[in-house]
Amino acid sequence: MADTLVLTMSCPDRVGIVAAVTGFLAGHGGWITEANYHADAGSGWFFMRQAILAESLDFPVADFPRLIEPLARQFGLSWTISESRIRKRTVILVSRQDHCLSDLLHRWRTGELNIEIVAVVSNHPDLESFVAWHGVPFHYVPVAPEMGRAPFEEIARIFSEARGEVMVLARYMRILPPFLCERFPGRIINIHHSFLPSFVGSRPYHQAYERGVKLIGATCHYVSAELDAGPIIDQDVIRVDHGDSPEEMARLGRDIEKMVLARGLRYHVEDRVLIHENKTVVFA
Amino acid sequence: MADTLVLTMSCPDRVGIVAAVTGFLAGHGGWITEANYHADAGSGWFFMRQAILAESLDFPVADFPRLIEPLARQFGLSWTISESRIRKRTVILVSRQDHCLSDLLHRWRTGELNIEIVAVVSNHPDLESFVAWHGVPFHYVPVAPEMGRAPFEEIARIFSEARGEVMVLARYMRILPPFLCERFPGRIINIHHSFLPSFVGSRPYHQAYERGVKLIGATCHYVSAELDAGPIIDQDVIRVDHGDSPEEMARLGRDIEKMVLARGLRYHVEDRVLIHENKTVVFA
Amino acid sequence: MADTLVLTMSCPDRVGIVAAVTGFLAGHGGWITEANYHADAGSGWFFMRQAILAESLDFPVADFPRLIEPLARQFGLSWTISESRIRKRTVILVSRQDHCLSDLLHRWRTGELNIEIVAVVSNHPDLESFVAWHGVPFHYVPVAPEMGRAPFEEIARIFSEARGEVMVLARYMRILPPFLCERFPGRIINIHHSFLPSFVGSRPYHQAYERGVKLIGATCHYVSAELDAGPIIDQDVIRVDHGDSPEEMARLGRDIEKMVLARGLRYHVEDRVLIHENKTVVFA
Amino acid sequence: MADTLVLTMSCPDRVGIVAAVTGFLAGHGGWITEANYHADAGSGWFFMRQAILAESLDFPVADFPRLIEPLARQFGLSWTISESRIRKRTVILVSRQDHCLSDLLHRWRTGELNIEIVAVVSNHPDLESFVAWHGVPFHYVPVAPEMGRAPFEEIARIFSEARGEVMVLARYMRILPPFLCERFPGRIINIHHSFLPSFVGSRPYHQAYERGVKLIGATCHYVSAELDAGPIIDQDVIRVDHGDSPEEMARLGRDIEKMVLARGLRYHVEDRVLIHENKTVVFA
Repeated sequence: MADTLVLTMSCPDRVGIVAAVTGFLAGHGGWITEANYHADAGSGWFFMRQAILAESLDFPVADFPRLIEPLARQFGLSWTISESRIRKRTVILVSRQDHCLSDLLHRWRTGELNIEIVAVVSNHPDLESFVAWHGVPFHYVPVAPEMGRAPFEEIARIFSEARGEVMVLARYMRILPPFLCERFPGRIINIHHSFLPSFVGSRPYHQAYERGVKLIGATCHYVSAELDAGPIIDQDVIRVDHGDSPEEMARLGRDIEKMVLARGLRYHVEDRVLIHENKTVVFA
Repeated sequence: MADTLVLTMSCPDRVGIVAAVTGFLAGHGGWITEANYHADAGSGWFFMRQAILAESLDFPVADFPRLIEPLARQFGLSWTISESRIRKRTVILVSRQDHCLSDLLHRWRTGELNIEIVAVVSNHPDLESFVAWHGVPFHYVPVAPEMGRAPFEEIARIFSEARGEVMVLARYMRILPPFLCERFPGRIINIHHSFLPSFVGSRPYHQAYERGVKLIGATCHYVSAELDAGPIIDQDVIRVDHGDSPEEMARLGRDIEKMVLARGLRYHVEDRVLIHENKTVVFA
Repeated sequence: MADTLVLTMSCPDRVGIVAAVTGFLAGHGGWITEANYHADAGSGWFFMRQAILAESLDFPVADFPRLIEPLARQFGLSWTISESRIRKRTVILVSRQDHCLSDLLHRWRTGELNIEIVAVVSNHPDLESFVAWHGVPFHYVPVAPEMGRAPFEEIARIFSEARGEVMVLARYMRILPPFLCERFPGRIINIHHSFLPSFVGSRPYHQAYERGVKLIGATCHYVSAELDAGPIIDQDVIRVDHGDSPEEMARLGRDIEKMVLARGLRYHVEDRVLIHENKTVVFA
Repeated sequence: MADTLVLTMSCPDRVGIVAAVTGFLAGHGGWITEANYHADAGSGWFFMRQAILAESLDFPVADFPRLIEPLARQFGLSWTISESRIRKRTVILVSRQDHCLSDLLHRWRTGELNIEIVAVVSNHPDLESFVAWHGVPFHYVPVAPEMGRAPFEEIARIFSEARGEVMVLARYMRILPPFLCERFPGRIINIHHSFLPSFVGSRPYHQAYERGVKLIGATCHYVSAELDAGPIIDQDVIRVDHGDSPEEMARLGRDIEKMVLARGLRYHVEDRVLIHENKTVVFA
């Protein structure tokens, strides 16, 4: 794949935004390989994402902030730019179950997922050897109620020292305290094992079993201070029936969890997700 | 299709039930064309459904209760028997939106759905001509808060006079009062336009839009006195994204509502659904 | 819904197309409500679709061809423009099974599908009364091998006299002769009851049953002179198992056929489908 | 999970089979936890599968053949019996892509899949270290046209020496010669990366791209001497659009391949698949 620059922008909607931005890019030789626009009628907000062949532009990436400044001021643009050749530094938090971790490690080492896994943190030591085989640092950080916020300060320290850009809760069975959620807004991604907003909190498969639903699901979302209530990135479901115990639902659900988390994370690291209030625009 | 008898049974689970029941049937020449069994480990309850070629049995249906009595007593069986050639008498309640009604009428007049539609009731007169074209009696029963339970007594009367066996709420936008729900337990089927238990109550597509979910759904369930909380028969979902307004979700959702209601009703009239406490066993 | 103009364009890909077109639109006050772009790396071709608020433009639609001419020449643009307030005139061909016809009539009379059904043609008289109830002209055109091309000339005449813009084969069980397919390229839409390219030709559910597949499907495609080989617009599938006879597959398949045809037709009449060689770009 | 015995049977359909078999089991105290029956109207054949609590039976498994003999003769039964506590010995063949292998190894080491992986064979040495980490013997068996059947004789030898019961082609990109397919009928499982019977043979994602299909799929099937034509166990699909290159289809398809292969293999090792002529009965 050729190197691309990915440019995201959002601003109040009005006539002429796309013309101005694409005119700017064309004026610098920019070859657009992928473009998505969304005008949100409800909020009156406009969102866009464009992928541009890096070698087609007549200026270095470092000059972009200065060059875009006049347009940004004119339209009230919030923007981000990133280079596809720079993989986002990812820290994975995991508990004992490793189906999501194992899946992400595979997608990373085969190059399918454009990330750099820089650390794995767990409240159990079990997965150390498997992570070590992959050459990734493993941090065992026990968590218990009487420890208060200390373990989570430790996690924040590990994340920062590893220069982490995205933190992934890959079936990490502890609730992050609000201070941690608020320190990295829009940068912590969780997989919840239910079709939110159904079955918030613990043991969602047991809740699903009790209610007798005919489909179970998983939800990939950004973590916010309110439990399981952050902006949703992706969801999916699988059919169950009366013969499925909570354990069998858990088995079926693992496949959905893996796929939804991997998809949501891919959207995030390819800058396909724009957060607006408590919702997402996902240019899938 | 050859005529079949459909026999459903449930009882506490123990060794020998299937042997006893199938032994009884075989002893009378019964040719089983379809058989389903479910032992529910959680409740310790056993459920079965068998379809038998009507002409293969050496006794008339009317004798079945007397003949099964010894087995029923021995195993504590609850049972039902029905004949496929006798279509269940169905009363449909509808408001203004007729996508479910139109769909059910089509499945009925083409013989796809083995029901007899004996009446349509609506709180609006709009659909009278369409229903009349099908030769089905149409009852206009206005509903307003100040009328109290009168309109619902009227509906109960229409249902009883038509010798209705199943009442279908095909996007009937009124809440049935508890007295009506309790008069016909396990015989009133509703389609709710969300993936229950998410978005109970009114305007579920608006609720879904506000939460930013990535799939919307519909749920076919038995009506109980508690709103949208009865046993679930079937559910399904469809993908939406940030570009879908509540109106577009409603459009997409209609297709799911139609299919899930038709499927749930088919399961019901073919005696594929056994209710146990607040859950269903569906031998699909 | 406010009136919109829908503009589609395709041309060889190069730098500056979007900037030029959106610059042109912005220069005339055009408020874009929906925009999609696709650069096809394989063919080097570029495709776009834009919906513009009709009232925002400072020129009447009739002037568009003249105004776009310089850009069209500069970039080698093929383009179409249409007004959402003008519903596309639709002629439906049907045989005896009416599940697709009934579904399309419902979507049309409730306004869900932005079409004008101007005629229904059938090789059987059975559906005349149902179509008549809807106030749509019904044409009974018998077809038999010894009639040669006469019936199809008659169909072409009906289509032209009704000023038809799109012809829909809604389970019309006859093969259109090449002369008819070629007279209306990109304007005849068929629903085939298999997941093409599997099971081309007749009795696809029986073919599926014989092969023992675990999913069956339907395909909505443009008709070309080669049987079941035209550009695919949409497809979908449903799960079956060993217990499903060809007849049960047909029953399950009908729901998929209806939905896929309605979806494909909606994409077509909203100008969301651009044909390139034997493939489609669908801006869903 | 308590130990269970799984009993499968097939025979010509007639009255009394279930009664006789369940009567036999009940007479020996057998507690049935799961039971499935299928009467195939087309072939006149009957299929069943029953799971029985091992400890409930009053005879040891070894006595089963002798005890069932009278019934087997009476009804012309073909039968198999297996113990859930004995995991089926599995040999995996793989080429360079390891998404299916990695997925199966994970399901095996977490106990989700009730198999014993006794060997991995590959025509490339790349995956040796990863397999070795799991403590599974890795066999590098190069394949080239000029080697003739030698490499496949070597594979057969490895399979036999490892006392393999099922051979899994987990994206093994070589065609097994007929002699090998015929030596282990119903014991070699392949995952083909298309929705068979579409796109038989090589490069199915490129074939799918060329045809412009809107869904791609994967098929798990038993290997027979005719390429990609053996009995189908399971299939699934995922949506693609005009923006997906063959490479992106391959990425999306890998997730489907993994899930379909894992599901098909689970059905096989839990004795849920009965083969009849070129089709399967799958008691999922």
